[in-house]
Amino acid sequence: MNNKKEILNKVNNQQLLIGVVGLGYVGLPLSVSFAQENNRVLGFDKSEEKVLKVNSGENYIGDIQDEDLKSVVENDFLSATTDFSEMKNCDVVLICVPTPLDRFRKPDMSYIESACIEIGKNMKRGTFICLESTTYPTTTEHFMLPIIERESGLKHGDDFWLAFSPERVDPGNKEYFTKNTPKVLGALTGDGLEIGEAIYKLAIDHVHLVSSPRVAEMVKILENTYRLVNISLINELALLSGKMDINIWEVIDAAKTKPFGFQAFYPGPGVGGHCIPLDPFYLEHIAKKFNFDLTMIHTAGHIDMLMAHRMTLKVTSALNRHKKAINGSTILFLGVAYKPDIDDERESPALKIIDEVINKGGNVQFHDPFIPRINTPGNNQLKGVELSQDSLNNADCVVITTNHSEFDAGFIEKNSQMIVDLRNLIKTATDKVYKL
Amino acid sequence: MNNKKEILNKVNNQQLLIGVVGLGYVGLPLSVSFAQENNRVLGFDKSEEKVLKVNSGENYIGDIQDEDLKSVVENDFLSATTDFSEMKNCDVVLICVPTPLDRFRKPDMSYIESACIEIGKNMKRGTFICLESTTYPTTTEHFMLPIIERESGLKHGDDFWLAFSPERVDPGNKEYFTKNTPKVLGALTGDGLEIGEAIYKLAIDHVHLVSSPRVAEMVKILENTYRLVNISLINELALLSGKMDINIWEVIDAAKTKPFGFQAFYPGPGVGGHCIPLDPFYLEHIAKKFNFDLTMIHTAGHIDMLMAHRMTLKVTSALNRHKKAINGSTILFLGVAYKPDIDDERESPALKIIDEVINKGGNVQFHDPFIPRINTPGNNQLKGVELSQDSLNNADCVVITTNHSEFDAGFIEKNSQMIVDLRNLIKTATDKVYKL
Repeated sequence: MNNKKEILNKVNNQQLLIGVVGLGYVGLPLSVSFAQENNRVLGFDKSEEKVLKVNSGENYIGDIQDEDLKSVVENDFLSATTDFSEMKNCDVVLICVPTPLDRFRKPDMSYIESACIEIGKNMKRGTFICLESTTYPTTTEHFMLPIIERESGLKHGDDFWLAFSPERVDPGNKEYFTKNTPKVLGALTGDGLEIGEAIYKLAIDHVHLVSSPRVAEMVKILENTYRLVNISLINELALLSGKMDINIWEVIDAAKTKPFGFQAFYPGPGVGGHCIPLDPFYLEHIAKKFNFDLTMIHTAGHIDMLMAHRMTLKVTSALNRHKKAINGSTILFLGVAYKPDIDDERESPALKIIDEVINKGGNVQFHDPFIPRINTPGNNQLKGVELSQDSLNNADCVVITTNHSEFDAGFIEKNSQMIVDLRNLIKTATDKVYKL
Repeated sequence: MNNKKEILNKVNNQQLLIGVVGLGYVGLPLSVSFAQENNRVLGFDKSEEKVLKVNSGENYIGDIQDEDLKSVVENDFLSATTDFSEMKNCDVVLICVPTPLDRFRKPDMSYIESACIEIGKNMKRGTFICLESTTYPTTTEHFMLPIIERESGLKHGDDFWLAFSPERVDPGNKEYFTKNTPKVLGALTGDGLEIGEAIYKLAIDHVHLVSSPRVAEMVKILENTYRLVNISLINELALLSGKMDINIWEVIDAAKTKPFGFQAFYPGPGVGGHCIPLDPFYLEHIAKKFNFDLTMIHTAGHIDMLMAHRMTLKVTSALNRHKKAINGSTILFLGVAYKPDIDDERESPALKIIDEVINKGGNVQFHDPFIPRINTPGNNQLKGVELSQDSLNNADCVVITTNHSEFDAGFIEKNSQMIVDLRNLIKTATDKVYKL
């Protein structure tokens, strides 16, 4: 009980030292949000480069304003370290590490495991620990808790509290960011829930409490499974529509006039980013342990897995009309980010298409205003070219893979020999434009 | 051109006679909407009973106010007939006939076919014809047009116009009804589109034009496929959550706090009604002709097809804890309508569960405040019982299949021996309540 009183007192007096493990696109904005409300934050990362940048107030995350980071660092509310032993000074540890899939679409839990080991080794008694990384339900209870208790020799409930609260970062979203996106929180005990709520309220407008970490874990998976399933659905319907001479974008715009019971998703070359292509497969993984087959996720994943290949076939078909093959042709890809107006190419479908086109002997070029060079999953390293009359005109085929706002549809349409438009960037149908 | 001028003149002077074929839950509200705006409407139906009721101002559709129907009939704006030869007097024919599936989940086009034959035989030159029934893309062009031209000897474009505009009726919706739900319209020619828009604007606030009937046909299918897929997704996640000791309703409520990119769907015993269980399979049917396999619809249909059986297993498991079997037990179903607060049991999953429980030797009773008696797909005819302390207490198991607003969760919980709650009606978890 003393531990609980002590940490709640520190919350009330804003005397906490809040540790944030992982200074990426989740951890750094979260750190800045707490620091902006005059809480002291200590960021942990194994990357010396990131730590140096943070400590010199140099921003490297698109969703953070440069001056915001600079200001909290200058005012000593935020610093960073690679030294995990400093965790002994933290009252709170928030974990924002990656939870990727391996090449076999299985969860890679090594980052969470490693974070738990460091925390267990270094934490003090009375620490509130919360995982923000997306993972399968039961992770907090069955995966993290035993590691932390083993490494620390401490006992949950008496000596520390463990909770889960999923990050909901939507990169590039100008309306909703860390502070004004409601935060779901589930803890292993009532005390942990009460403490966690008090802490998050220091930086976040609305905290929504649920009855357990596993409910909170499932919340995030539901949100992103919903998106994967609906994107795969509309992609499949788009492919059929192409065969039936139906413009799927016109269909979606009309369906959107229904004032209830519909939410629009748009087709494209497949899902990308750090969440939608990954999260559902964390659930599929744990479901197996419960002897349960998640057929919707499986089917959605199946559709998505085929998209890059199907898009390559679109390029093949388009070139074929000009009596050309991919082999020997120059193909210019416009946009490699997984969504518009961000600089993130993780899991981007464009990279997979590029790999396949290179494998077929295509001479690939790309342009992305946010990404100067890429290294594809197939280990093809490319440097971007300029978007110019020449680069467009020299390409046998231009493929629009991301609809960045700054792409000028008229300019591209006018100067290209042939366009495969996977994002409906070119609204006017002309002979040289082939749609998804 | 004379035909076009003539019909547009009649629109402007509200001198049209608007024929509506099919006086069911779509056709009658549509008729009343036109009639309320002082347009003369003549309803056609093969059912003498419906025609007699309409002509005596007697309402039989839940979404229509009794006094609205009475008023338009008394003021001679609406009448009805079984005599299709009267169609020769109509300037407009709107088709609102059923498009069911047969027992093999294949489209039953006989109602549309029969309507087209009657129209072709009886129509006059210069008629605007529009189908509102949900059907697969290309129906208007490839299925209806040849029948009408053949039967009438008239030529489309010169002699009449054909269009498609999907009904969007949501039974029981108090906010959106015929007049204020935007209407999507696609026609075979520009003239047809212009005429159709002018006509629908007589009764409907907003008409959204699309480039072809097949786009409009696809719009409706997209809207309802979206619903089938998402309901099946949440049902599958609910079944897994049950195994993982996660309350899926709590998960959904928390996910709903995400202010972007999420729309909540709720689990239940499966989809029902006249749209969601049918429409996607119209698309699946035509897709085959294009050598295309709609895997998302197939998977969603597969999940839905298994729901009644899985729900029966829930009843079996619950009874098993009391050392009882379905065989010989009394099972009371609360709600047989496919959704709350309506009197429609078409395609309702409750009926399928009832059939399965009866087949297993259960003594089935049901109560539904809106439906006094049922005839199940398995041809079991049952009369509802009262919802009382006695009927609840006498049942070995009470199954909540529809969450009608008037069901009193506390009363049901208090007086039942055991409850299988498929709709999350009973919010407080007690020992005797088993959730989906």
